[in-house]
Amino acid sequence: MPAANIGPELQRLIDLLAKLPGLGPRSAKRAALHLLKKRDPVMRPLAFALADAADKVKACSTCGNWDSIDPCAICAEASRDQSILCVVQDVGDLWALERAGAHKGRYHVLGGLLSPLDGIGPNDLNLGSLIERASAPAVSEIVLALPATVDGQTTAHYVTDQLIAANVSVTRLSQGVPVGGELDYLDEGTLAAAMKTRRPA
Amino acid sequence: MPAANIGPELQRLIDLLAKLPGLGPRSAKRAALHLLKKRDPVMRPLAFALADAADKVKACSTCGNWDSIDPCAICAEASRDQSILCVVQDVGDLWALERAGAHKGRYHVLGGLLSPLDGIGPNDLNLGSLIERASAPAVSEIVLALPATVDGQTTAHYVTDQLIAANVSVTRLSQGVPVGGELDYLDEGTLAAAMKTRRPA
Repeated sequence: MPAANIGPELQRLIDLLAKLPGLGPRSAKRAALHLLKKRDPVMRPLAFALADAADKVKACSTCGNWDSIDPCAICAEASRDQSILCVVQDVGDLWALERAGAHKGRYHVLGGLLSPLDGIGPNDLNLGSLIERASAPAVSEIVLALPATVDGQTTAHYVTDQLIAANVSVTRLSQGVPVGGELDYLDEGTLAAAMKTRRPA
Repeated sequence: MPAANIGPELQRLIDLLAKLPGLGPRSAKRAALHLLKKRDPVMRPLAFALADAADKVKACSTCGNWDSIDPCAICAEASRDQSILCVVQDVGDLWALERAGAHKGRYHVLGGLLSPLDGIGPNDLNLGSLIERASAPAVSEIVLALPATVDGQTTAHYVTDQLIAANVSVTRLSQGVPVGGELDYLDEGTLAAAMKTRRPA
């Protein structure tokens, strides 16, 4: 039920804002009021930025990253190590690795994970071009930076199998205790994995 | 520091989304990715709705409510009790009262609260027209539905003083135990107020 007596333009704005992840119906109302108070500094620029990004931002035809240029800024960066490809689930994970400065090579965005329950199979992912890129002579290592979830690990297994013919070394992110993590608050699976893969001090 | 290698269109969208209340820099990124995945069902309509509402939604010249018509839908509703005016801080509080079906009269939106610390004085609020409306013969009661905060109560006192000449009865929302509220979790001020204003059972 929409709250009574909200005009149609405002109600539609609230309904659309409520579709953003992190905003519910009530916070969408608060956001709409906030925007109406800041029409020129925020509301109109946001309207323009949304339309502009919707038109200009495309998936990079090489790696699947989102950018307004193709190939994307990362693929175009000549100083990046061409021998390592890091496979990620989506652009958000690519950004997380970039933020951490954790990877100096290039990326390959799968666009999802295999999920038989959700009906997502290999053909729904950006897999064919990964095998093609991995087979290039310049590429020597594929790092699978996929989530440590059931779907993520299923996908990692599948991708590893598919890459056998490409004759590259396939690696994964290590699992263990997060930096700054208290052992007491960690789940048993992580603790067991960290113990199993313990290293010389 | 913006995350490295995000295109300018996308970065600007993220920066603007991060200005919405309830979204921070990280959730703004998640929202931007979500929008890019739903360009036609959400992103472009949201761009349009923002621009459309920014152009069409105006403050009602009578009560200060936001609507695309003037007088607003509430002021225009003939069946509403014209003798009671409910004074609220902003349109969000008006919506809350409407959602609760708590008020069958009309509203008056102050557009803020007196706050000497923030430099907000009587002239910054929609007060002159309140006194004018309160002086109309049809109006017999002004309900001050202002927050139970220091600024809210200061404003309520000030408005009450200003309304003496208008010769109307000025009332306030009662304070007490919220419906469904556990006494154990209530602050001392509320409990003391509820005890002081206790009523026959």
